Amino acid sequence: MKSLGVFIFPGVQTLDLFGPVELLGGFFDRISLTFVAASLDPVVTRHGQRILPDKSIFEARSFDLLLVPGGDSAIEVGNNPDSVSWLEEVSDNADLVMTVCTGSILLAMTGRLDGRRATTNKIDFRDTVHLGPQVHWVKKARWVQDGKFFTSSGVSAGMDMSLAAAAHLFGDEQAEWMADETEYAWHKDPSWDPFAVKSGLVQE
Amino acid sequence: MKSLGVFIFPGVQTLDLFGPVELLGGFFDRISLTFVAASLDPVVTRHGQRILPDKSIFEARSFDLLLVPGGDSAIEVGNNPDSVSWLEEVSDNADLVMTVCTGSILLAMTGRLDGRRATTNKIDFRDTVHLGPQVHWVKKARWVQDGKFFTSSGVSAGMDMSLAAAAHLFGDEQAEWMADETEYAWHKDPSWDPFAVKSGLVQE
Repeated sequence: MKSLGVFIFPGVQTLDLFGPVELLGGFFDRISLTFVAASLDPVVTRHGQRILPDKSIFEARSFDLLLVPGGDSAIEVGNNPDSVSWLEEVSDNADLVMTVCTGSILLAMTGRLDGRRATTNKIDFRDTVHLGPQVHWVKKARWVQDGKFFTSSGVSAGMDMSLAAAAHLFGDEQAEWMADETEYAWHKDPSWDPFAVKSGLVQE
Repeated sequence: MKSLGVFIFPGVQTLDLFGPVELLGGFFDRISLTFVAASLDPVVTRHGQRILPDKSIFEARSFDLLLVPGGDSAIEVGNNPDSVSWLEEVSDNADLVMTVCTGSILLAMTGRLDGRRATTNKIDFRDTVHLGPQVHWVKKARWVQDGKFFTSSGVSAGMDMSLAAAAHLFGDEQAEWMADETEYAWHKDPSWDPFAVKSGLVQE
């Protein structure tokens, strides 16, 4: 059984968080989820729902797997020393680290993506990648794997990345099974990214 | 501003719920969300997260729009008189009623889909549609619109249905905008349903 630490914070983007929770958490006999926040107070998502964390960052600092979702507020979190310290410690010790959308920028702010290839969401790409100046940001990618880091593009891309991470952990057949269980049309090609074109980051 | 009542219950399937919340709730100046449950206690989702309801079914019984997500436990909810009474009253008075996955079966158990075309998830299709014997169940459909009722197939299909509902409410351009904002590849054809084939409900 692998432990998955899911970092949540006020304003966390709903689908960044719950898409991966569905597609990874659905491996009930292989992955156990823990929602971790700066405190045990309810965390209000971007769309206004109140989620109760399972643990605070002061209680749980070691997981096999880490998920860092995004949201406009993720960058503020990157200025919080306690949260940054938690992200550094947990990502250093995890076997696999996943980010979605501006969650990639948040992780980049800790320096943990320095020298690595990574991606983030395409609409805010130009306005945010300067926060990780030593990262090799990939403009056109649904997700990027570099070593143990799986970083994905905006919001919905976290679902495709999660299935890629599941394939990495458990094999392609298991990831396909999960896609079928959830009637999800998995984009299996990490370079598939029409949104990079729509956002004007790359040509057709 | 349209009010959207989101019915939640123990064991609610995570992405059935939060996919539509992302894609409908993201119309911040057009839709306001209220999570409604049988009581104000935290509701534990299928994947173990604790969500705080905004209102109980005894406090909030009128919305412009209704969302009924699914989950294996949805059918038990269909045997609860208070929840069924709430679903009947809210769906009768709503302008638009949306269901995802076994949420369609739950609504069918109230009789509100009698005589209408509707769909539900494909894996459990054969084992569940008898609970709505007067419904014209459609085997191959990502989602079905019949009048004010938008019913969808399993889990991920709720996102495609939500964008169709958004197009119905606000126009196609607005729905496309939301898909782009969330980097979601919208399946716009309601008859697109590879999972009906995979589940052996229909031939290729």
